[in-house]
Amino acid sequence: VIIPPVKLNLSGERFRVTYRLAGNRELAMARANDICVEQTIEFPAELVPTGDIHDHILGQIESLEEVSTDVHRGVISFAVEITGFELKQLINVLFGNISIKPGIRIERIDFPNSFLDKFSGPRFGIEGIRTLLGVKSRPLLCTALKPLGLSAMQLAEQAYQCALGGIDIIKDDHSLANQSFAPFKERVARCAGAVRKANSEGGHHALYAPSLTSAPDRIEADALDAKNAGAGALLICPGLIGLDVMRHLADNDRIALPILSHPAFQGSMVTSPENGIAHGVIFGSLARLAGADSSIFPNFGGRFSFSRDECHKIAIGCAEPLGNLRPIFPTPGGGMNLGRISEMREMYGNEVLLLVGGALHQGDKGLAANCRQFREMVEQF
Amino acid sequence: VIIPPVKLNLSGERFRVTYRLAGNRELAMARANDICVEQTIEFPAELVPTGDIHDHILGQIESLEEVSTDVHRGVISFAVEITGFELKQLINVLFGNISIKPGIRIERIDFPNSFLDKFSGPRFGIEGIRTLLGVKSRPLLCTALKPLGLSAMQLAEQAYQCALGGIDIIKDDHSLANQSFAPFKERVARCAGAVRKANSEGGHHALYAPSLTSAPDRIEADALDAKNAGAGALLICPGLIGLDVMRHLADNDRIALPILSHPAFQGSMVTSPENGIAHGVIFGSLARLAGADSSIFPNFGGRFSFSRDECHKIAIGCAEPLGNLRPIFPTPGGGMNLGRISEMREMYGNEVLLLVGGALHQGDKGLAANCRQFREMVEQF
Repeated sequence: VIIPPVKLNLSGERFRVTYRLAGNRELAMARANDICVEQTIEFPAELVPTGDIHDHILGQIESLEEVSTDVHRGVISFAVEITGFELKQLINVLFGNISIKPGIRIERIDFPNSFLDKFSGPRFGIEGIRTLLGVKSRPLLCTALKPLGLSAMQLAEQAYQCALGGIDIIKDDHSLANQSFAPFKERVARCAGAVRKANSEGGHHALYAPSLTSAPDRIEADALDAKNAGAGALLICPGLIGLDVMRHLADNDRIALPILSHPAFQGSMVTSPENGIAHGVIFGSLARLAGADSSIFPNFGGRFSFSRDECHKIAIGCAEPLGNLRPIFPTPGGGMNLGRISEMREMYGNEVLLLVGGALHQGDKGLAANCRQFREMVEQF
Repeated sequence: VIIPPVKLNLSGERFRVTYRLAGNRELAMARANDICVEQTIEFPAELVPTGDIHDHILGQIESLEEVSTDVHRGVISFAVEITGFELKQLINVLFGNISIKPGIRIERIDFPNSFLDKFSGPRFGIEGIRTLLGVKSRPLLCTALKPLGLSAMQLAEQAYQCALGGIDIIKDDHSLANQSFAPFKERVARCAGAVRKANSEGGHHALYAPSLTSAPDRIEADALDAKNAGAGALLICPGLIGLDVMRHLADNDRIALPILSHPAFQGSMVTSPENGIAHGVIFGSLARLAGADSSIFPNFGGRFSFSRDECHKIAIGCAEPLGNLRPIFPTPGGGMNLGRISEMREMYGNEVLLLVGGALHQGDKGLAANCRQFREMVEQF
């Protein structure tokens, strides 16, 4: 069954994906050839229609070089048109089927600007969030309301103390969904109200970011309701609700709130050095393409296992040029405490949203006083 | 900052998650304790509020046993209420933050029936799809329209040949999104029309399943439009659009079409034996909870690397008792050909949807004739 030559109307623009390929040159070349087919036409090689499908739709190996023994780096390019200029299909081309094949890891992606122009990306980014908060140059402060099981009233009391203490962004813990203990609607109303009250009393401009986990048909309405109730940002787990749902919320002009992206359920993509997607890509460039204004990730030396270098690469991914897409705040957290602040400042510089959670509840001084100490430490920089 | 004892109104019902934990007993116990905290309260142990948060919201280690040297199996239970009875938050509790921690793999989940009753699950399942197709007991046949780059008219011609040849379910390749070559709306209209024509000429009851990748605000409307245009099922990639979006589409009484779940972008969860979620859980029980009627996965010995045992476990996950949730069709594919059919029948029995794609285009006899041969082979069972 031979398909006649196909003529398509293609621009010639291609994006380039750099893969780490496990194996010697022969195996790495086989993997690269496989990616070219698997991520595009998934069709027996001998039956590939001639013409544009063969010449342009198939992935093209641009280079293949040895990095170390049994590790190669391959660059493969794809015609921009096969994404349909949609985020979901881009992700599909990048790592859909090959997510199931071992020994392949995406290390970086280079998009032509004409492609990036199809995406709005972060609505606020670093500059937009600084403007909202009225904070020029110091690192920003973030904390999380927890633990799961507290009532909306108890969480609101925490939010009040944190805002009084000078935290910039007070987010729900990502475990807070719509449980009976603290239903979303009541929690948002109480916490937003508490932060508003503290702002008017303490003179700060804290933002409250509820965790948005609503069902697909309610998520936009719930985001709007949260905004109307006084929420100043949104916490989103793209691994749970979908990267494209995050993008869709970011693109909504009526919602128009900064988005903090949380890495829950995305970890499997980064835990193996041989498979998956590099930290800087999934928590940097792809988070930006999907509209995040802040990318939360576990800092090195905390409760999680990211290395210093992996965290550094996330920070680079949040800031490096990406067409006209705004740079965003790397947001390291996960078991941080005030003893780590100066080290974090040293590593990330000023363009960072520092996330300290449970540690602010420790000691005898009280939550607001601990937050104040956090704020004072950061203001000294 | 001590939080006063909290009293919650909990049912006492818990679900049990079995984890493979890497490490000796001490390390495995540390991982188990960590899961109990990380997946629930994420709060310093010494500050955990007494009362119900400590006694019930925290995960509880039910057992921990050695499986082999440096491998343990731990069972941890969680109060059903912390999920808010929502799929996204269930996934979050199961594997949100710990997806970022190496050495933890979910091996199985046991839910109380009262919990499963909150989910509708597959609308059709095996029995419902058999009724739609009018096929009592033989294995069902599936193929994919491809390659990417063909026009809607060319794909429709393929669909026509496949339906004439007796394929039961003719799905879009998952690479077909809304590219200019074959836009979704035109493709659905033409392919559905072609299958309808072939059904009336050939006497079969083939269903056409378009790949649905629309943006969040259009996906329901596009599914309904596809149904109105004659689509008989839907192909969904939950890794790309979100498990909960798939569930939401499955639950929609107006759409009411069988859903084929495709594993794109979910592979990272299964590629490492030490991390992630076992094949039978992610492609079996969780796919069912999320409303899939068929779970597509790469069969062993094809283009992918799943083992025979891993595929067997997916088939078990598709069929084993899961409250009132219907059993669904395991749908092995990924580089299959007619030479593999009797082996697949032997392994999966009759309750299987056999997916053969590119191989049906090989040889000189033509697509319809190859499909007919596929059908005849299966009818002999």
